[in-house]
Amino acid sequence: MTIEQGALLTTGKAKAVYATDDPNVLWLHSLDQATALNGKQKAEISDKGRLTTQISQQLFRFLKAQGIVTHFQQAVGERDVLVTALDMLPIEVVIRNYAAGHFATRYAVPMLAPLSPTVQEYYFKNDALDDPPLNQSQIFALDLATPSQLTQIEAVAQTVNRQLRQLFEAVGITLIDFKLEFGLDATGALTLGDELSPDNMRLIDQATGQSLDKDVFRQGTGDLRDGYTTVLHRLTTYLGE
Amino acid sequence: MTIEQGALLTTGKAKAVYATDDPNVLWLHSLDQATALNGKQKAEISDKGRLTTQISQQLFRFLKAQGIVTHFQQAVGERDVLVTALDMLPIEVVIRNYAAGHFATRYAVPMLAPLSPTVQEYYFKNDALDDPPLNQSQIFALDLATPSQLTQIEAVAQTVNRQLRQLFEAVGITLIDFKLEFGLDATGALTLGDELSPDNMRLIDQATGQSLDKDVFRQGTGDLRDGYTTVLHRLTTYLGE
Repeated sequence: MTIEQGALLTTGKAKAVYATDDPNVLWLHSLDQATALNGKQKAEISDKGRLTTQISQQLFRFLKAQGIVTHFQQAVGERDVLVTALDMLPIEVVIRNYAAGHFATRYAVPMLAPLSPTVQEYYFKNDALDDPPLNQSQIFALDLATPSQLTQIEAVAQTVNRQLRQLFEAVGITLIDFKLEFGLDATGALTLGDELSPDNMRLIDQATGQSLDKDVFRQGTGDLRDGYTTVLHRLTTYLGE
Repeated sequence: MTIEQGALLTTGKAKAVYATDDPNVLWLHSLDQATALNGKQKAEISDKGRLTTQISQQLFRFLKAQGIVTHFQQAVGERDVLVTALDMLPIEVVIRNYAAGHFATRYAVPMLAPLSPTVQEYYFKNDALDDPPLNQSQIFALDLATPSQLTQIEAVAQTVNRQLRQLFEAVGITLIDFKLEFGLDATGALTLGDELSPDNMRLIDQATGQSLDKDVFRQGTGDLRDGYTTVLHRLTTYLGE
């Protein structure tokens, strides 16, 4: 059965979302666009959509093989994938293995200090409110997730972290931190959604100490495609096409 | 045995702390000063020190009678109390029964919307960092409290909330939210410290809907002494001198 691309449903910061002829399947098309500071910093970067799509595909396929329930179904082009339609929870889950970004400045922790235990943060996905941090009791009082959903999110996020750290370690990259988003599929099952790419994670090349992620764009220190290309090349060499 | 007031150790926003001839006992003297916005808003308000001391004394004596371990020992004047010296944890614990203040604006929740379950927040007590919010994993990674201390803090805070809500309810006042601070005594026992007064809690008169706390000062809507006097009068009438 071939899935047909349908109407454009919404355009996000780095992605266009289309319907398909199957109501349980969405068509994601990655744009050649980078944003930072909640959209205040923005640029067109050719080929970026292909790189993030390919990296995300590698990481989702890897996690699926480890038994993680994800929305990823299949690629339908260099920068297009089919995913399970999810009712997204309005929560961003951030896992931090080392201090960086907001965490380092907010708590005056030296950059790249190892964090033990791993820090797990929640943010309210709400541009108008500037994505404020959430703790568990706030999530429940604001009715953003149920206690059992949050317990499951925490367990899945920890497993994803363990698996991704090992994978990146095997290709000479340190996973500093990353963001996950979850949703519920048509049966109500909690499912890992969104994209997994250097747009949503900090990665450091163990050989050179260089940043291989969007920090290069945020800080204007170079061409983010160099790092993204390195990440994709190493993952593809290690995991196969 | 009479305790003698010793050297001035430190002066905070609303209190001066003195040593005594017993190293395990501190002498707290409340100042006639109100501050808000982390010290950016400040005023001299005569009699305020007496009011906060008397209210705090009533609330600490009440909580002690309910079995809560607190630093309060005895009054030594209208605005002076002896307390157990504590090694304070650098954490502010905030309990919210209804939306107000930062919570209402940060999450776009209507003022005074009831919160279920009760929201419990932690903040890093650090003026230079502007008291950023903390979740549990951050508290552990930053080594600000141990898991067993935090479990105990959460349980004590919930009990204090239940007891104080009932007490205020009995005198026609709704407890909206409040802040607690904890420390360790010389034996390492977790102990409720700081002050319990309308400087650190939001209280609303059920008959008039009026604010009886420091919001009157923060928002410049009147003389905070009116509300504080009402709170003290009702507590004293109900609990005795």
